[in-house]
Amino acid sequence: MKIQLRDETREFEKGTTILEIASSISEGLARVAVAGRVDGVLTDLSVALEDDCALEIVTQKDPEAKQILRHTAAHVLAQAVKTIYPTAKLSIGPATEDGFYYDFDFKTPITVDDLPKIEAEMKKIIKANFEIKRNVVTKKQALKRAKDEGETFKIQLIGDIPDDETVTEYTQGDFTDVCRGPHMRSTGMVKAFKLTRIAGAYFKGDSKNKMLTRIYGVAFDKKSEMDEYFVRQEEAMKRDHNKLGRELEIFTTVDYIGQGLPILLPKGTAIVQTMQRFVEDEEAKRGWVRTKTPLMAKSDLYKISGHWDHYKDGMFVLGDEKEDKEVFALRPMTCPFQYQAYLNRARSYKDLPMRLAETSTLFRNESSGEMHGLIRVRQFTISEGHLMCTPEQLESEFKGCLELAIFMLKTMGLYEDASYRFSQWDPNDRDKYIGTVEQWEEAQGKMKTILDNLGIPYKVGVGEAAFYGPKLDIQIKNVWGKEDTLITIQIDQMLAEKFGMEYTDKDGNKKNPYIIHRTSIGCYERTLAYLIEKYAGAFPLWLAPVQLKVINVSEKSEDYAREVSQKLALHGYRIENDFRSEKVGYKIRQAQLEKVPYMMVLGENEIAAGTVTLRKRNGEEIRDLSIEQVVEIFNKEIEEKIK
Amino acid sequence: MKIQLRDETREFEKGTTILEIASSISEGLARVAVAGRVDGVLTDLSVALEDDCALEIVTQKDPEAKQILRHTAAHVLAQAVKTIYPTAKLSIGPATEDGFYYDFDFKTPITVDDLPKIEAEMKKIIKANFEIKRNVVTKKQALKRAKDEGETFKIQLIGDIPDDETVTEYTQGDFTDVCRGPHMRSTGMVKAFKLTRIAGAYFKGDSKNKMLTRIYGVAFDKKSEMDEYFVRQEEAMKRDHNKLGRELEIFTTVDYIGQGLPILLPKGTAIVQTMQRFVEDEEAKRGWVRTKTPLMAKSDLYKISGHWDHYKDGMFVLGDEKEDKEVFALRPMTCPFQYQAYLNRARSYKDLPMRLAETSTLFRNESSGEMHGLIRVRQFTISEGHLMCTPEQLESEFKGCLELAIFMLKTMGLYEDASYRFSQWDPNDRDKYIGTVEQWEEAQGKMKTILDNLGIPYKVGVGEAAFYGPKLDIQIKNVWGKEDTLITIQIDQMLAEKFGMEYTDKDGNKKNPYIIHRTSIGCYERTLAYLIEKYAGAFPLWLAPVQLKVINVSEKSEDYAREVSQKLALHGYRIENDFRSEKVGYKIRQAQLEKVPYMMVLGENEIAAGTVTLRKRNGEEIRDLSIEQVVEIFNKEIEEKIK
Repeated sequence: MKIQLRDETREFEKGTTILEIASSISEGLARVAVAGRVDGVLTDLSVALEDDCALEIVTQKDPEAKQILRHTAAHVLAQAVKTIYPTAKLSIGPATEDGFYYDFDFKTPITVDDLPKIEAEMKKIIKANFEIKRNVVTKKQALKRAKDEGETFKIQLIGDIPDDETVTEYTQGDFTDVCRGPHMRSTGMVKAFKLTRIAGAYFKGDSKNKMLTRIYGVAFDKKSEMDEYFVRQEEAMKRDHNKLGRELEIFTTVDYIGQGLPILLPKGTAIVQTMQRFVEDEEAKRGWVRTKTPLMAKSDLYKISGHWDHYKDGMFVLGDEKEDKEVFALRPMTCPFQYQAYLNRARSYKDLPMRLAETSTLFRNESSGEMHGLIRVRQFTISEGHLMCTPEQLESEFKGCLELAIFMLKTMGLYEDASYRFSQWDPNDRDKYIGTVEQWEEAQGKMKTILDNLGIPYKVGVGEAAFYGPKLDIQIKNVWGKEDTLITIQIDQMLAEKFGMEYTDKDGNKKNPYIIHRTSIGCYERTLAYLIEKYAGAFPLWLAPVQLKVINVSEKSEDYAREVSQKLALHGYRIENDFRSEKVGYKIRQAQLEKVPYMMVLGENEIAAGTVTLRKRNGEEIRDLSIEQVVEIFNKEIEEKIK
Repeated sequence: MKIQLRDETREFEKGTTILEIASSISEGLARVAVAGRVDGVLTDLSVALEDDCALEIVTQKDPEAKQILRHTAAHVLAQAVKTIYPTAKLSIGPATEDGFYYDFDFKTPITVDDLPKIEAEMKKIIKANFEIKRNVVTKKQALKRAKDEGETFKIQLIGDIPDDETVTEYTQGDFTDVCRGPHMRSTGMVKAFKLTRIAGAYFKGDSKNKMLTRIYGVAFDKKSEMDEYFVRQEEAMKRDHNKLGRELEIFTTVDYIGQGLPILLPKGTAIVQTMQRFVEDEEAKRGWVRTKTPLMAKSDLYKISGHWDHYKDGMFVLGDEKEDKEVFALRPMTCPFQYQAYLNRARSYKDLPMRLAETSTLFRNESSGEMHGLIRVRQFTISEGHLMCTPEQLESEFKGCLELAIFMLKTMGLYEDASYRFSQWDPNDRDKYIGTVEQWEEAQGKMKTILDNLGIPYKVGVGEAAFYGPKLDIQIKNVWGKEDTLITIQIDQMLAEKFGMEYTDKDGNKKNPYIIHRTSIGCYERTLAYLIEKYAGAFPLWLAPVQLKVINVSEKSEDYAREVSQKLALHGYRIENDFRSEKVGYKIRQAQLEKVPYMMVLGENEIAAGTVTLRKRNGEEIRDLSIEQVVEIFNKEIEEKIK
């Protein structure tokens, strides 16, 4: 048979295993080989090939190798559990992004305190270095073994497989598990692992089924890699906005209000208010005017826009079309609301470009599982905008929108963390989109030209476009590595026609404008989340919810501290006084925990000199300052938005 | 029989008419008498009294007299219509606030062009000065006459009267109408009237019934009064925000979005943004911190607050309690959302007073008939706030809230137009309220003491309280005389307990704080409406959506004008350039129509001198200014918020 390898095609005898082929290439390759990819499908090294095919040897360096390692670690976990708890029933055990889990039904519930015992047993299994043998059986044979062993959940899982399919079983030592594979060659190849936590999980993820115990673990190629992972995790945990944001009293959530509906506390609100005014003022400087449009509309509007057909499941609908005269829906977007400002009078080419911005609240009916802190929520406020222009203006106006977005990212300190995605339609999923192939090709073509002219290093995301046009998405990752869209700039040549938006061109003809949909800093909630994680709560002075904490050393200096605080408050700084009768060291430590950028500790020395001492977050002190000098330092740092 | 008059009790013979009694007091009184009020019930002068009673003589000076006059004018209208259109059928014809109307079913529809003809006929009837005779008949007799005359609608109206009631008929000349009365003595007493418009109106106001033609008119004691009325109407029409606000492109509404959901256009948004920042900054100066809380919540929240039981009809509900796991409702108030900031940690007396403000969007499911422009809408944004305090702090904090509200009213220029209403509960309508009699008496008692100590000249509004406590409402009237609440300050001693809000007092005991609910300038939409009407669109500089219009005299001065405009724009002023190739006079007139506070007309004189000329809205010119001088003039006027 002919086997097509990476660089050449070679002839092998039928029945040669993938491992044997790897060895024939080089012994070095065979040593690091983990699996094979036969005509694109991952499979075990032990599999014997019978036909012509394309073969890649997957080695430890390939990303798939980690998934295989972690899957094998899950089997090691299952074997250990069955050794210690012979009555435990097995369910499933896949690899995850950083590790693996396995679901068990324990006769007596276990706790995290039992994990070290299980880990010890796993280590024994790894040390024994059992060969992992693959065996192809019929569904009937697999079912019989599961029944003999009383594996209730496996019986159901095997039962779901079509009758005529074969099933693979993997055996290591005295432990056998039904599994698609592939796996490592032997248990000894699991070099570094740790069990991390346990949780409840319904069998097959269905709340009607029994709740099982899920044991989570992580696994890596070597210990140093795992150590790095835990350091990263610890750092992420410290920065996680969903934890830190609550600790710093930036936001909270309340069960009886609902999931995905965060409450911005005074500190969070101060940050958002500062950002919002900054964005609004910067937009004004760049020729944007603002609107304030309703947060809901009759279904009639969404029927014109296409949202009723293409987005209804994502909307909150008020009323029932069958029963009520008027059905309203909360808006998931601002577009057709803002278009009314354009439509308010007849327009000519002289009115273009028209740049309409809005600090806009939107609602999306996300399902419970998708919601996360301030990043994925049901209600959010976005720095929204729509720009109507002629075809000739499209490129320069798109550039203007992108420049504004980049300016915002740089000012906020998020620029280095962002990447670009050119989100296109999926021509094989036409139902998701309005418009013709020609319209999509034209809009995407224009966008490609613009992006290429600007030299934007983008990835293409097929099927990620809006239903009415292509998008440039500026992507960012949270501390856990999950990527979301922060900013988006879209080209739309369809909705203007639907809403009857026209302008009289120089030639006297009526035409539909191009519309650029864009945000300048995205959603304030999401941006706030990334800022919390970026700065680990230690915000730059201009954004800090409390900019200065004034602390008196003792009762004797309270009057002086109050006087200084009041003088500085006249400049509009966000100041908190801590005049409690606590030890000054305690008060300083608390201000440090709150990550306040500046403290002012005032005692008898300062009273005598009539000066103040500023203390930065990093401990650095600036002594013998007059109030005027503090104002100068603060104003410079705030105006220049120093990070 | 004994008749108790205003100043004395006198004896009269049974059967003496009210007019005779008036004559017996003085002939002068009899001349100006219009009706009598017998034991509080209005009735005709011709009615003969048979029993002891209290009697007031209603004269032209009394407010009721105008209603009687207008009601009589309606009968004159009906008589005139029946004379000209004998086949027209009568329905009803009451007095209204300034006049009257009568609903007819015309065989052939009439238009406003027919009104002069009807007016001419009415004048004849007035000149004939028919005596208006009152006649008491049985329901049966009234029904018979209506049937004889073929008055289909009257037959239905009389049919609705209970069988055992008597009916009064009023006859003037050959015209008789069934009517409760009272009426003027004769048709000649209608001295000044005018028919104003016609409209369609369903019989009995029910859209299932036939659409009739309603003819509207106004009537006054004398012509000069009517002339004044029309001058006032014309002025009101010019100021009416619902007309002027649209003309000046401040807002619009769109049918497919929905009633009561106004769209603020760029000019309206600029005004609201300016107000909002001003309010937020002023609140910060006065010790308020801000929150930003969700616009919806699960029904669970509203059940705790009591809104689910007491206000559900006024809310937009998402979902159905019978079908859905989670039911949400858009919020009609901010209270329990904002309380979460208080509840975020344990509180002590040292945390009080806690002043929480929010620029908060609310939703109220108003019925279609109630909505009006920007004054009564389904969605609005309010300068909301809640203040948690101890009983000892209540008076001074209430005073602080009131001072803030008055400061806002004065700054906006609405102070002189405002009046105060102390809104109390209605003890006879207990279902509308939560809490005990004692709690209400305590809260209202405290509020009374505070208001009296502050010397606030209030009217009492029984039944106008919130369901959880009494309110001080600051009331204002629109150009048409309709009164609404602009600002409200409420005392609440009930909700803190419901939401488990406590503080540890000096004595170590847990207590519920008092809560003051308050706005500082009310809803931005409503305030904007009153400002449009107050200034007839000619806003003070600090609020004006466009503060300066830069106009070039000719093409030669365009570059200079642009340069000047750009220099001024650096100061953040809202500037519009009018560099069109139109005549300068035309451009000035347009800026005047837009009521822009300042224009700058730049021509060759200004270029030569390197100066600018400012032109105020009132035509006044300030010549030979440098840019720096303009900045000085503008900054002073903006900072001092000169009206």
